[in-house]
Amino acid sequence: MSYELPVLRALIDHFKRMPGIGEKTARRLAFAILYTDREEVEDFAKVLLRVKERIGFCSICGNLAESDTCRICNDPRRESGVVCIVERPADIYFFEKIGNFRGRYHVLHGLLSPLDGVGAGDLNIENLEARIEREGIEEVILATSTSVEGDTTALYISEILKGTGVRITRLARGIPMGSTLEYINGNTLAKAFETREEI
Amino acid sequence: MSYELPVLRALIDHFKRMPGIGEKTARRLAFAILYTDREEVEDFAKVLLRVKERIGFCSICGNLAESDTCRICNDPRRESGVVCIVERPADIYFFEKIGNFRGRYHVLHGLLSPLDGVGAGDLNIENLEARIEREGIEEVILATSTSVEGDTTALYISEILKGTGVRITRLARGIPMGSTLEYINGNTLAKAFETREEI
Repeated sequence: MSYELPVLRALIDHFKRMPGIGEKTARRLAFAILYTDREEVEDFAKVLLRVKERIGFCSICGNLAESDTCRICNDPRRESGVVCIVERPADIYFFEKIGNFRGRYHVLHGLLSPLDGVGAGDLNIENLEARIEREGIEEVILATSTSVEGDTTALYISEILKGTGVRITRLARGIPMGSTLEYINGNTLAKAFETREEI
Repeated sequence: MSYELPVLRALIDHFKRMPGIGEKTARRLAFAILYTDREEVEDFAKVLLRVKERIGFCSICGNLAESDTCRICNDPRRESGVVCIVERPADIYFFEKIGNFRGRYHVLHGLLSPLDGVGAGDLNIENLEARIEREGIEEVILATSTSVEGDTTALYISEILKGTGVRITRLARGIPMGSTLEYINGNTLAKAFETREEI
């Protein structure tokens, strides 16, 4: 006979399905809910549902949006000539936190990954080609991650856009600021040598 | 102008209020919700509410319970002469996982902590005294943690129960099984010397 209450077990299992949460952490979070005020938990449940109901993707760039288009696409102060291409809406947050990029974004919602069955048709690429003409975009900055999938996707997009005459750039690769050489991997070091700058 | 959606921010804040969850993890979990099936999120919200609605504390021992008394108190196969005193309902889970204890439990719902304003009146102690008479308990095992508060609480309870004639024990302290001496703190080593056993 197990003495575990089924409803508590169900809550632990929900937490366990989240990324990076194992049995122990899930159990800790479920017990925390037991000791949380009823009102607070009711609000938590409401917010969970509201996030699913209200948040969709921007029809222009694919960012998170509460209406048809997102807050960045709706902001007339953002430069319309430059588009930064990212993998996920979460990436936009990191760039906005730094705040030096004043252009617009385009979210692919994934990276090309033939092994996982993700092809170009599964990504938000067609929309991008339409945007370049419509918005008179002059520069596309590829900001996909520096993994095999990220590089493959960047290469694919740059091939597609070759004919459009748009300037295609990608984020610089090199040694992270403030880092010690001994902790940097060989690929990064080799790349930093290759693209060394005059001082 | 912040581009963050208020409802997403609210969800991040809810996750952040949970123990051991910081801004980055909370953000990761909130984005995971965005990519989780609607049905799954709806069930998550339902289970959260159900946990708060259905789970209360056992009127006998203070363990989690879906009715007036908990599953352990309701189980006639558990020995009624021995009671193990623990700080929180979560502790019961750890003992049950090992499975060698077949008696009953008593949950204090905290430890004495004068600095935090937690006195004996705030703990589930009065109920314990009533149980000893009513249930004919012969042994009380103190299983509070080996912190200052845990030891103070154990001492306090043993003083209170002195007159009852009940046998009062506590879990053995010593070197954890399978551990290397160099990683064991001085207090534990000193205690292990003091209470050394014949082999």
